[in-house]
Amino acid sequence: MRISGRELHHLMNVLRLGEGDEVTVLDGSGGIYEVVLISLPSGSRENSPAVGEVKSSRQAQPPQVEVTLFQGLPRADKMDLIVQKATELGAHRVVPILCQNTVPRLSKEQARRRVVRWRQIAVEASKQSRRPFFPGICDVTEIDEALKEFPADLKLVFVTPSSTVAQAVPCDAIAKAQSDAIAKAQKKLKDILNQSVESKRIGIFIGPEGDFTEDEIHRILQAGTVAVSLGENVLRTETAAIAALAIVFYEKTDH
Amino acid sequence: MRISGRELHHLMNVLRLGEGDEVTVLDGSGGIYEVVLISLPSGSRENSPAVGEVKSSRQAQPPQVEVTLFQGLPRADKMDLIVQKATELGAHRVVPILCQNTVPRLSKEQARRRVVRWRQIAVEASKQSRRPFFPGICDVTEIDEALKEFPADLKLVFVTPSSTVAQAVPCDAIAKAQSDAIAKAQKKLKDILNQSVESKRIGIFIGPEGDFTEDEIHRILQAGTVAVSLGENVLRTETAAIAALAIVFYEKTDH
Repeated sequence: MRISGRELHHLMNVLRLGEGDEVTVLDGSGGIYEVVLISLPSGSRENSPAVGEVKSSRQAQPPQVEVTLFQGLPRADKMDLIVQKATELGAHRVVPILCQNTVPRLSKEQARRRVVRWRQIAVEASKQSRRPFFPGICDVTEIDEALKEFPADLKLVFVTPSSTVAQAVPCDAIAKAQSDAIAKAQKKLKDILNQSVESKRIGIFIGPEGDFTEDEIHRILQAGTVAVSLGENVLRTETAAIAALAIVFYEKTDH
Repeated sequence: MRISGRELHHLMNVLRLGEGDEVTVLDGSGGIYEVVLISLPSGSRENSPAVGEVKSSRQAQPPQVEVTLFQGLPRADKMDLIVQKATELGAHRVVPILCQNTVPRLSKEQARRRVVRWRQIAVEASKQSRRPFFPGICDVTEIDEALKEFPADLKLVFVTPSSTVAQAVPCDAIAKAQSDAIAKAQKKLKDILNQSVESKRIGIFIGPEGDFTEDEIHRILQAGTVAVSLGENVLRTETAAIAALAIVFYEKTDH
């Protein structure tokens, strides 16, 4: 087995491994290899690969549930955090979605570079959390496209008491925050998860900073999505994403 | 009502409110006040207070459950994140605990300054998430002291597959990571939470980077704490803290 590029750099300069050391290699598709390092490139010649001998290998079982996080694109550092945490918690796929309240206005080239960066974060987080299947990080997508393209048995949109209300509204907007229609559509998360034991492909919609607009929530609901909430506190977008993933995996896996 | 200091700064320079504007004021102990600003200090004279007229006020109900996060002290930026997220999610109290694997070696003065900082973060996050009861942020505490001083109906320690194993171990340590005793003591989180419907004061123990040592876990277990896990993935300390809080509040509150 040959190891090169970023992984080789990690091996030599972060883990500081040498010839004869053992390392676990993940291929991202469930393959787990125990490898003994036979030779490493000398000095700073990291463009030649390391060579390892595979001592044993096994194929991990794919996860029982596939959870896709449809994340309203927030500011850069928050999306980095969300990709890292979604990976650790086990998300199958992250779809960054463009929303009316999305602040970063990315050119095509900027969006492409961001996606490359998120994929690197996902690989790092997969290794750190020892998950043998790496998540897919999709290109930045419009909401309607996301609703059409990714089939799911169960789609949840997390609405908070502040939904459709800008973050900075200084008066107490909690009571009047949601339109009646959205409030009426809202179900108890626990009931929904308990009623959908058979659902194996789950989509989670989380708004960006400033949340989904009312119009966006209606479009998401029209696509058969169920509106649920994470309680009374107004959560930041990254907190909502992490909490929603933690809860769905808690309900859907056996640990 | 007089408003001064950091809150006045926030009012004038972040929210950019002026005379006649309305603002919601939280006192941190459940009091919620709707206030009209009568006068603001002119120019940069922020050391004189703003004066507001209370139009209405109400007292929020205290939460049904009190969750204390006993957080093995991690590096600075992670603890900031944890305090923010624990506040958003509803933690009653955060107790930073010194562990054998805690990296920051703080002097008394440094520890005091950190606590002041975390308290500011908790206030900011309380306002942002509109929680009327601000959480308590305790002084940095030794584990044994924490186990003695804070009574709880239910104490949970989250052990991950990597418990007692340093983060950087490069070989596949998943299978051999936990001692038999800890593995045996481990219960299913869902069973424990379902069996303890009456528990209203819950303590959550999360290790620092590098996790609790085996010795520490044994001391925590001896104090009547139940060992549970968040699944197969190895979670970073801040991810484990956020996920554990999200799940406990999901099970313990009605939304």
